[in-house]
Amino acid sequence: MSNFFIKGNKTVTVLPTNGRAKFFAFGIPNYTNLGDQAVSLASRKYIEKEFPEYEYIEILEENNDEGIEAVKKIITSQDIVSFVGGGNMGSLYTDHESARRKVFSTFINNLTISFPQSINFEDNPQGQKELKLSQEAYNKNPHLYLVARDAQSYHRMQTTFKSHVLFTPDMVLYLNPRDFHFERSGALFALRRDGEKVIKDELVEELKDLLDNGQRPIKQTDTVLDDVDRVTPLTREKLFDQELELFAHQEMIITDRWHAMVFSVLTGTPCLLFGNSYGKGKHAYFDWLEHINWIDYTDESDPERLKEAIHRLMNSKTHDFDLHPDFEQLHRVIARHSNIIK
Amino acid sequence: MSNFFIKGNKTVTVLPTNGRAKFFAFGIPNYTNLGDQAVSLASRKYIEKEFPEYEYIEILEENNDEGIEAVKKIITSQDIVSFVGGGNMGSLYTDHESARRKVFSTFINNLTISFPQSINFEDNPQGQKELKLSQEAYNKNPHLYLVARDAQSYHRMQTTFKSHVLFTPDMVLYLNPRDFHFERSGALFALRRDGEKVIKDELVEELKDLLDNGQRPIKQTDTVLDDVDRVTPLTREKLFDQELELFAHQEMIITDRWHAMVFSVLTGTPCLLFGNSYGKGKHAYFDWLEHINWIDYTDESDPERLKEAIHRLMNSKTHDFDLHPDFEQLHRVIARHSNIIK
Repeated sequence: MSNFFIKGNKTVTVLPTNGRAKFFAFGIPNYTNLGDQAVSLASRKYIEKEFPEYEYIEILEENNDEGIEAVKKIITSQDIVSFVGGGNMGSLYTDHESARRKVFSTFINNLTISFPQSINFEDNPQGQKELKLSQEAYNKNPHLYLVARDAQSYHRMQTTFKSHVLFTPDMVLYLNPRDFHFERSGALFALRRDGEKVIKDELVEELKDLLDNGQRPIKQTDTVLDDVDRVTPLTREKLFDQELELFAHQEMIITDRWHAMVFSVLTGTPCLLFGNSYGKGKHAYFDWLEHINWIDYTDESDPERLKEAIHRLMNSKTHDFDLHPDFEQLHRVIARHSNIIK
Repeated sequence: MSNFFIKGNKTVTVLPTNGRAKFFAFGIPNYTNLGDQAVSLASRKYIEKEFPEYEYIEILEENNDEGIEAVKKIITSQDIVSFVGGGNMGSLYTDHESARRKVFSTFINNLTISFPQSINFEDNPQGQKELKLSQEAYNKNPHLYLVARDAQSYHRMQTTFKSHVLFTPDMVLYLNPRDFHFERSGALFALRRDGEKVIKDELVEELKDLLDNGQRPIKQTDTVLDDVDRVTPLTREKLFDQELELFAHQEMIITDRWHAMVFSVLTGTPCLLFGNSYGKGKHAYFDWLEHINWIDYTDESDPERLKEAIHRLMNSKTHDFDLHPDFEQLHRVIARHSNIIK
């Protein structure tokens, strides 16, 4: 029994063959990283809002192989194939990369969108082996559009693949900002526990001391949940909303997670972002968000200098911003396809 | 007598009407900023190499009005119009901006390329007045493609104008690197003397002391020449080559000029770039050049930290790099036009 398609808020067992053009969204996560969950949520909202003529169908990455087989049976030239965005293109997360390769190299006659990603193939034999596998797979698809979510990735994609490469922000930045009007109290440290972590534990402790004024609650968390096992398109929006509410209660966010910065942007919460192992947050910050007052990126490790930066952020005022026009390159590609087909 | 077209290495008085498709390059500088001269040189080399089917005709910005009138008389739908790239779109250089507006708002039926630029409209009444004038002019042209040379400008262009916006490096980065095999001796300070300057004189003096080992000649210059009055397409290449040779003799370049960093990239010369008033060099560095070992960008003012950075750069090894694939978005637009017309 196939039971792995999500349409709207329902799991469906059989793909609809109703003549409507379909937008197949592969690579949808079931794991508990709220950044990645927010990406898949935002991608759906983007297509549903900008291209309502498409029926949006999500396929969990855990069902990638069966999903591909089922889609192959019903796909027509008007349909669009996509793979989820995020920060996992490359050799660091081979499960995701291998699912992505299968999708790109299977639907070679359909417009194929790789939603905004950062890319990092390590400069070592394993990394270069993975790189060759990806080149082989991606280059089979002449209708593949890779979207880079930062300029460094844009350069890397263009020098690595033959595909068209577009440049837009991370999909989560398509979501509208929200003002919860909460009273803010506390500082939240949203820190990685994975291989991309570079910020030193001693520095984290120094920052906690610095922010602790005896009244302000200081908490540490990660945007990867550990109190649930599994998040799906049916449960992600509620958890995402709860996470935004958590952020909107804070006076300050200290993080090395790119999406924690994005949640801070959306909720108007002061945030200082530290680097990860290959600069994905840093680049995306300078490319899209440097003009936003209440957030900043730093490589600094001198507590005195950090104190100044945090003080400045906590005293900043929010203001309007609009990143919607930055998704224009993606819009044009889908709109062009949609017009050709009509 | 019209005497303001440059075709190849000749000034021509009458535009050729030979049936060949033409590429009209407006906004060509006659002033002595070698960065801007290099941009116009590189743009010509780009079109001549990638699209040799076009006859490339340059029009000096000083002849903008007469040039527009003459081109209007002979232009056909196969022809392409362009305006030179650089770092002067916005309200800081109103002469250039006003020449650009005229070109964009005149040839509204032709594919129009604004070569890679940085953009900066100041957030004050004069800046916002200039902005409105530019919006009015640019938005008249539905075939206008603005090319941004850094992500900050890409965002600003997309949120400011209705035009298509592409993303590529500065045109000078299209030129091939050169290895002169010179013996290197000396440090060159290539510093602005204009309104974009932010680096402090005292810091410059400290850096000179730091680099002065008693044997190493320390010179200060600017990439804007003051020993000639005028540079044109007939004289620019020789001066550009001489500038690259000057750079290729140095052990170290200290600069706040983006194009001095580009000349350092092309000649494999260690270079530390400081900021200008609105971040155009910083952004272009992080977007395209962070992976190049022998150059770096800094906002630092602590001499001890700068000493470390300079030491690291002077001991770095050169390596291959390739930015040609990063011009792909521009290539596709011109190639598509060229194919439609054929």
